[in-house]
Amino acid sequence: MAKKILIIGGVACGGKTAARLMRVDPEADVTVLEKGEFLSYAGCGLPYYVGGVVSDYKELMSTPIGVIRDAAFFRKVKHVDVKTRHMATKIDRRSKVVTALDLESGEEKQFPYDKLVIATGASPMKPPIPGIDLANVFTLWTMPDALGMRAAIDSGKVKKAVIVGAGLIGMEVVEALCEQGLDVSVVDMLTQPLPALIDHEFGNHILKVLKNRDIGFFGGEKVLEFLGDNAQVRGVKTDKRELEADMVLMAIGVRPNTALAREAGLEIGDFGAIIVDEYMRTSDPDIFAGGDCCIGRNLVTGKPAWQPMGSTANREGRVIADNIAGRNVTFKGVQGTAIMKLFDYTVGKTGITQEQARQNGMEAESILVVDPDKPHFMPQGGVIVIKLVAEKKTRRVIGAQLFGTGKVDKRLDVLVGAVSGGLTIEDLADLDIAYAPPFTTALDPVTHAANSLRNKMDGLMRSYSPSELIEKFEKGDDPLLVDLRTPDEIENQGDLPFETINIPLGQFWEKAPTLPRDREIITYCKISVRGWDAHSILKRLGYNNIAVLEGGIVGWPFEKK
Amino acid sequence: MAKKILIIGGVACGGKTAARLMRVDPEADVTVLEKGEFLSYAGCGLPYYVGGVVSDYKELMSTPIGVIRDAAFFRKVKHVDVKTRHMATKIDRRSKVVTALDLESGEEKQFPYDKLVIATGASPMKPPIPGIDLANVFTLWTMPDALGMRAAIDSGKVKKAVIVGAGLIGMEVVEALCEQGLDVSVVDMLTQPLPALIDHEFGNHILKVLKNRDIGFFGGEKVLEFLGDNAQVRGVKTDKRELEADMVLMAIGVRPNTALAREAGLEIGDFGAIIVDEYMRTSDPDIFAGGDCCIGRNLVTGKPAWQPMGSTANREGRVIADNIAGRNVTFKGVQGTAIMKLFDYTVGKTGITQEQARQNGMEAESILVVDPDKPHFMPQGGVIVIKLVAEKKTRRVIGAQLFGTGKVDKRLDVLVGAVSGGLTIEDLADLDIAYAPPFTTALDPVTHAANSLRNKMDGLMRSYSPSELIEKFEKGDDPLLVDLRTPDEIENQGDLPFETINIPLGQFWEKAPTLPRDREIITYCKISVRGWDAHSILKRLGYNNIAVLEGGIVGWPFEKK
Repeated sequence: MAKKILIIGGVACGGKTAARLMRVDPEADVTVLEKGEFLSYAGCGLPYYVGGVVSDYKELMSTPIGVIRDAAFFRKVKHVDVKTRHMATKIDRRSKVVTALDLESGEEKQFPYDKLVIATGASPMKPPIPGIDLANVFTLWTMPDALGMRAAIDSGKVKKAVIVGAGLIGMEVVEALCEQGLDVSVVDMLTQPLPALIDHEFGNHILKVLKNRDIGFFGGEKVLEFLGDNAQVRGVKTDKRELEADMVLMAIGVRPNTALAREAGLEIGDFGAIIVDEYMRTSDPDIFAGGDCCIGRNLVTGKPAWQPMGSTANREGRVIADNIAGRNVTFKGVQGTAIMKLFDYTVGKTGITQEQARQNGMEAESILVVDPDKPHFMPQGGVIVIKLVAEKKTRRVIGAQLFGTGKVDKRLDVLVGAVSGGLTIEDLADLDIAYAPPFTTALDPVTHAANSLRNKMDGLMRSYSPSELIEKFEKGDDPLLVDLRTPDEIENQGDLPFETINIPLGQFWEKAPTLPRDREIITYCKISVRGWDAHSILKRLGYNNIAVLEGGIVGWPFEKK
Repeated sequence: MAKKILIIGGVACGGKTAARLMRVDPEADVTVLEKGEFLSYAGCGLPYYVGGVVSDYKELMSTPIGVIRDAAFFRKVKHVDVKTRHMATKIDRRSKVVTALDLESGEEKQFPYDKLVIATGASPMKPPIPGIDLANVFTLWTMPDALGMRAAIDSGKVKKAVIVGAGLIGMEVVEALCEQGLDVSVVDMLTQPLPALIDHEFGNHILKVLKNRDIGFFGGEKVLEFLGDNAQVRGVKTDKRELEADMVLMAIGVRPNTALAREAGLEIGDFGAIIVDEYMRTSDPDIFAGGDCCIGRNLVTGKPAWQPMGSTANREGRVIADNIAGRNVTFKGVQGTAIMKLFDYTVGKTGITQEQARQNGMEAESILVVDPDKPHFMPQGGVIVIKLVAEKKTRRVIGAQLFGTGKVDKRLDVLVGAVSGGLTIEDLADLDIAYAPPFTTALDPVTHAANSLRNKMDGLMRSYSPSELIEKFEKGDDPLLVDLRTPDEIENQGDLPFETINIPLGQFWEKAPTLPRDREIITYCKISVRGWDAHSILKRLGYNNIAVLEGGIVGWPFEKK
């Protein structure tokens, strides 16, 4: 007899579960209830529709050959009965029936199930700030949101936009709106962009990118009110200023949609998301949950982690379908990987930071390195900044942050594999990465990062990150900063905002003995490779109180002189 | 007392060893003997100098800020005494002295050592084919080789070039010479390009690239003679034809330079290369060897592997220096990673093929998948073909080949990490790869490959690679090929060179029951995702003798109709 599978939600996880069921469970009789009218669309593509990179919204819900993934498609191809505009309102676990409201007819309907899948996703937070319901105050989460933003832009009446919230979506929309010719500002309660993802140094790199594009960033400010004229937004009032705005995007975060699950008495965990086991089963063995509404496990810390991403939702949907089909498949977890394009730059991270390691009782060491993307003799090379984190005890790679104009996504994915595979920094350094000059340097930036961290952890090299150097000065230390660059480079690249002395590397053996022995000497250059040479030379000359500034001038994210 | 370290060879491994010694061994007194006049140059960059991508050869031996890495640089910065044009002629292991000939003065000199490093590299093979000493018959291995080729091209007298040997260097030079406007042909004893790296299917993809550029490939032909006029090459005679040529590149392979080591009685292993242990020590504990002259270990098979690559040489040099400094560091080995750019395409591999697995007593399964590089709604996406190999017993990823116009290098490096980290196909499928639309699809091609191989290994999907389909027809099988594309696609993309029937996926549920039950049905489409849909539908309809053509039309490397 057919097994009735009911899926609540038809965007990412729900759509994937339905499609996979057709493949793995010949007995499955699958129904999907979706409260909206759009199915299986690429939510992560919405900023690119707003920005005009994607010209037709239908592309976001088409197969690659242009067939719209609508209810007819699901029925004809996947043999799945999809009911759009049907909002599930109640789960009766005893009788195994879901009640849903047909939003077209207003009719209340009953859907019995043998197995239920909750894939209700998340919703953007909309706090009750005065004026939040003014026209042109948007969130960007669903297809209608994107259509609304695009219509406002296309009206030609929007010149100035304020984005509230500098998380991934907010920052993606910064680029989208700039590409549309708008004058964009960003407001965030915290003092840096992407505060949940990257640390202070990387946040400051992004601030520089914004500044170079004349994009205002108002960090540490709280929005008090949206100002309006004729029910239309005209400005944003924060605790420090008023900003003009014909359009506002509220992107302060999302929350899992769990009202149904809560009311049905399913277990809810951290972040207010549904608890599932490694088989994606909720506390009711006949109910599965996946995607943004449920909580996973962080592979590095072993702790609960909420990672509302389309990629995760798709992976989980596959696992749910397999388990409904009795295939006994587990999902190992996530590791906090995130990536974002911002104009010519890419920023990304995976695993945990040194600070997060500390919070989880792990002792960790980190290093910041800067590398060219390709050999200097090849054209079109960019630059890559990597902060690599390893656990001290096991030497395992546990996290990384990356930023730059080079192929950051490639190195990030290698590091994703390193974290997931439990590679030590030695394993990572030995990794037989594909080398030819069009693709990377003989020793890839990832190799270099691993080797530098080995040097640091083995006590061969002492070093400070940019933030650590700032802290030293703030607490009154007075190290001698020695710059190994040529005078030309200093003129072109700028210099640290401290007193420094310049000894080009070629003269260093000769001049180093004149340096004081009673003062800490910190060496650096453009990317601190010559800084490391000089550090080695000082060591040979018997200097002990020495260190390298990690990443040199290119890795320096703060003000320069 | 200073420890005398003598290094024979100053290009990749030798230069790296010397530079690292300065950092890790304060007592090291380092001398490098290099028989040529150039040091520490990027040998892998030579084809790009020949092709004009690199305009000045000095860039290949400069630091990124333009300082030439010559003997003066090594002395001034690295405190290393480099003697160029000094050819080591004898190692006296008892008295620990190396004899070298000063090629400038003709003087014979003695160099005592405490620790010796042999980094003599490899040399291109030049068999005694008649005419091989004619002018404009080149090898491309050293800086002078590249200068010679470039001078010949710059003379303007070279119009037609023949490349003998379709390995990595030969194929890189194909592109280089085409970029210089030459008419290029390739001759190889074997029937496909890159025979040592990739299998028949991938070789055929490359043949298509060559054909589309009007580059002749004469496979399975043996060069009998180089024809000349006035001591200048004018043609190549093979066992099947004569080809006109104003320039010839002999690129049939390289051999390790081990005469010195052999005469000194050091152990020599497979491939005629010097045997070293994981500390890079030869059979004499005071002599280390690294780079192209020595043999490593393949991480997958555990067997000896010779991998003459600049990246490997650099890694090994670091390990040698560390061990000379008493730091007890090991080098784990290599895994046969290689990558090459060929016009708009990239081809690469890592680990072992299914056939190599069989030869090593491992039972393996493989799958070929084709994927878009990015979501179809994003601009500038390419295509990626992946063949993924896993061991049946452990489900560990043991190898991959990749080809395409997309970011092949990124996926290859992820797979390098997967092989090295011992990831199973389940681990690989779950990998939290960085997703945002500018970088990849919600499920990356690597995820898709892993999931497809899971489907195959779990018996959910039967499938054939293109070669396997050809074999089926060759042995007289008569499967029914069902094409799920639209008629428009078929017209634009071409079709398999067999009798096929067309049922667009949207009509498949309806029409499938009319298909015969007594004949094997093989489904496919553009990339066989719809082929897999149809396979699932047939399964639900009770068909048993069914399979998918892996990679569909885009993955099909052979002739089409």
